[in-house]
Amino acid sequence: MDTAVARVRAAYERIARVDRPEVWITLRPQAEVAAEAEEVDARAGRGEPLPLAGLTLAVKGNIDVAGLPTTAGCPSYAYRPERDAPAVAALRAAGAVVLGTTNLDQFATGLVGTRSPYGAVRGALDPERISGGSSSGSAVAVALGIADLALGTDTAGSGRVPAAFNGIVGLKPTRGLIPTEGVVPACASLDCVSVFARTLPEARRALALLAGPVTPPRRPGPWRVAVARPADLGELDPGWAQAYDGAVARLTAAGAEVRTIDLTPFTRAARLLYEGAFVAERYTAVGAFIDEHAGAADLDPTVARIITAARELPAHRLFADQARLAELSTEAAAELGDADALLLPTAPGHPTLAEVAADPVGTNTRLGRFTNFANLLDLCAVAVPSGEVAGRPFGVTLLGPAHSDDRVAEVAALLEPPLRVAVVGAHLSGQPLNHQLRALGARLAEATTTAAAYRLFALDTAPAKPGLVRVADGGAAIEAEVWELSAAALGRFTAALPRPMALGSVELADGAHVTGFLCEPQALEGAEDITAYGGWRAYLEAVSRLEAHA
Amino acid sequence: MDTAVARVRAAYERIARVDRPEVWITLRPQAEVAAEAEEVDARAGRGEPLPLAGLTLAVKGNIDVAGLPTTAGCPSYAYRPERDAPAVAALRAAGAVVLGTTNLDQFATGLVGTRSPYGAVRGALDPERISGGSSSGSAVAVALGIADLALGTDTAGSGRVPAAFNGIVGLKPTRGLIPTEGVVPACASLDCVSVFARTLPEARRALALLAGPVTPPRRPGPWRVAVARPADLGELDPGWAQAYDGAVARLTAAGAEVRTIDLTPFTRAARLLYEGAFVAERYTAVGAFIDEHAGAADLDPTVARIITAARELPAHRLFADQARLAELSTEAAAELGDADALLLPTAPGHPTLAEVAADPVGTNTRLGRFTNFANLLDLCAVAVPSGEVAGRPFGVTLLGPAHSDDRVAEVAALLEPPLRVAVVGAHLSGQPLNHQLRALGARLAEATTTAAAYRLFALDTAPAKPGLVRVADGGAAIEAEVWELSAAALGRFTAALPRPMALGSVELADGAHVTGFLCEPQALEGAEDITAYGGWRAYLEAVSRLEAHA
Repeated sequence: MDTAVARVRAAYERIARVDRPEVWITLRPQAEVAAEAEEVDARAGRGEPLPLAGLTLAVKGNIDVAGLPTTAGCPSYAYRPERDAPAVAALRAAGAVVLGTTNLDQFATGLVGTRSPYGAVRGALDPERISGGSSSGSAVAVALGIADLALGTDTAGSGRVPAAFNGIVGLKPTRGLIPTEGVVPACASLDCVSVFARTLPEARRALALLAGPVTPPRRPGPWRVAVARPADLGELDPGWAQAYDGAVARLTAAGAEVRTIDLTPFTRAARLLYEGAFVAERYTAVGAFIDEHAGAADLDPTVARIITAARELPAHRLFADQARLAELSTEAAAELGDADALLLPTAPGHPTLAEVAADPVGTNTRLGRFTNFANLLDLCAVAVPSGEVAGRPFGVTLLGPAHSDDRVAEVAALLEPPLRVAVVGAHLSGQPLNHQLRALGARLAEATTTAAAYRLFALDTAPAKPGLVRVADGGAAIEAEVWELSAAALGRFTAALPRPMALGSVELADGAHVTGFLCEPQALEGAEDITAYGGWRAYLEAVSRLEAHA
Repeated sequence: MDTAVARVRAAYERIARVDRPEVWITLRPQAEVAAEAEEVDARAGRGEPLPLAGLTLAVKGNIDVAGLPTTAGCPSYAYRPERDAPAVAALRAAGAVVLGTTNLDQFATGLVGTRSPYGAVRGALDPERISGGSSSGSAVAVALGIADLALGTDTAGSGRVPAAFNGIVGLKPTRGLIPTEGVVPACASLDCVSVFARTLPEARRALALLAGPVTPPRRPGPWRVAVARPADLGELDPGWAQAYDGAVARLTAAGAEVRTIDLTPFTRAARLLYEGAFVAERYTAVGAFIDEHAGAADLDPTVARIITAARELPAHRLFADQARLAELSTEAAAELGDADALLLPTAPGHPTLAEVAADPVGTNTRLGRFTNFANLLDLCAVAVPSGEVAGRPFGVTLLGPAHSDDRVAEVAALLEPPLRVAVVGAHLSGQPLNHQLRALGARLAEATTTAAAYRLFALDTAPAKPGLVRVADGGAAIEAEVWELSAAALGRFTAALPRPMALGSVELADGAHVTGFLCEPQALEGAEDITAYGGWRAYLEAVSRLEAHA
């Protein structure tokens, strides 16, 4: 791991490079953050246990960071807290360094990331598309590699939808697990502090520091996962139904028992959140402020309209909705039965900024179809990437009953994106060591070549293997296969590697860098340069033809 | 125990005698009830376990009894259920016979018992005063000895206030313990089915049949009872503060550890019930019906006004009140600490019908001061009689956390009114067996005489004892002492009685009948009639004078 100082320097370099000013509401001065990082490094050097030392943290702009304005996305609402919210304090105490506060849908009201006077937050990977919200800036800061961890909040899905749209992990813990003290309430009885990270283990490590382990005893036997019938999912973006089926297939392949359930009680509960009286809790939180500032330029008009309209909702309707919710809750629990988790797409689709601008409420409503019910039904949720559709991230969420956070995360881990390893010699399909990859559950993803920047040598090993070497000039494209395998499998593969072989970063023909085979320089001494053959198999064939002719 | 048939006959005789037609909304025809009672007797005779065989049951008019109209106190609202509510079914299954459905404050909205087109229900013991409500008819039917058990409902105190005003026991169980299926909702999330009986053991027996035992482990050591500071009780009716102090003193005398707490969070929560947005749940239940029937003659105008006004309460205020309640709940729990129960007057006073008519809302509001908070704070409660003030019943309530129903009832049992036993011989003060009474914790309540209808005989026993005999003619008033003791003590006293002594019912000079000493007729054969001495002590003195002169 980098030192905190190096990591902070890299973060500010990245901030300058990505040119996404809308991500931040208050970015702290680099010198101030660097000084804090020095202090962390010094403490770590003295042996203090700082499990998050060397990691950067972004904090959603509705969560208190001591000394920075808490805006909730509304400049005139801002106040300057004297103390960190407990969630912030816990991560800082573990060594994380706060970079600043991030942009959000104003008053955490939205799933789009565009409802902010600080600017619409563009998707990390496709700036034409929305980032998702309301924890937009936090998610994008992580997705762009600026922050290692970020805190969001999640009432209707604000900690999950932006995770899906930006290809990262979003943990929405059980209600009450992380204190919401020092958080501007959206719906106080439903709000959760959520965690973003690029990988599930990182997110879980942060959650463990925030809430401690939450491990109900696991039943013996395979994981049981409830999945939705295609008809219950409604209209999805093109290719998303197939991507969902792919996630189901991967869970099955990983040994989970999959059972189809009726999603009706969940989608009905989801609709209650905005179509019923529950939205009035947003007026309880900030309605008086919005009424006093009616028409102010820094109020997002859509947010103001939603919250102002909620003023008129009658309490008797809320009681009716609460009773209805209790019924739906019973029905939902019956559908889940003994399932460890429910698998759903995190969102039904990923709109463009233009689509949201054309229909701010309609697009937003659609986005909450698979998220709105979670806090109403007291479920915990883990949103994880699950491949791509049309070159953009596709994400799924695993949900489970309150306090099953760890169990649900274990199921989500089955879906962790595979890692990739490029092989160029004895591990190629049909070659003597290819069985090692297959035994580890690896799967051939792509037959390609390296970038035209390598030379290949025949090493003196048994079985015979090539050595791949990157060169400044005179490089060629070398035949390669990319295999996908789990992180654990790659770890075991790496640990079993014999001298003089090595794994490093290899550039492929398309410019991507993947883990791939290299070798120790020493092994190249006296080795034959076989670059001209274009790859190991061609070389072997040539040798075998020569031998046949001999 | 009487047969069911005899008990039903006695009940209808009593109904005719008391002339309280307002108690009932639907009194079943006697013949129909008698036929059911015959069936119960027959089944009991066949050995079927029917623990409530021989007991009559009255059911509040907002609880379904198969075939009787459920009115909730409003004729035009009535429907005729096909099935008993589960609570009714459970008591019937145990052998109780339903006499009919009872009057109530319309839609269970009130603590007065006067808000009904079926007539104001007058107090059982003082018809100038209110019965209390909303379970008015049920409480009065029990207090007048017509029904042995009655079902009420309790949202704001409707199962406790009428218990106090009519000198009976009211059990308000933990929310959800008795199903509210088949009950017209008042505030659906708070409503409880409650039980009335003349004694605590009878009420607890019914609760056990309705809900099963609810017995959290008891801590070792004495009961711990929280009590209120006088200032926190506010203005009480004359003599009620002293009566409350008396209950505290009796708990202390019974060995309980009493600790004074701050009542503020409880009284603040109580005010939330009607002054806040919680009342809107009543509109959820029956608001649409009242709106449609605006101005109808059978709508109680006060009830209609309260529920109609609740239509306008906004949902955002309800969210604020729910958040406030959560805070008060934490504060209240901290005040209770490790106390087994909180002791309070059940009501602050007992108004007349005229006072309620003059200020229907103000008097009602005052009555809920010590009851309104219980269901909001998820407490269980037991209302028990605790002596009299100015010849009218005074009642206290013991409250405890959810699911401590049995523990709270055990504390309430410490306050059970003592039983009385009249002694005329060797158990009189200073006489050889008086120590038996003192050892049982009995206390001399009154020195008096029997009615002038008895003769006294000197029996041939050791120690010497008199025999008291009621006679049709030529009776005299015989010196007697009335001792008070607990039911358990009287039981042990009775069990230890040697031949030829007996305990029966003895009429006192003031016409009251109390348990008292009689004897077997056989013992009177040849015994000396000492009636002329006026009592056992006078006879012994005369004998001793004679012996001194001899």
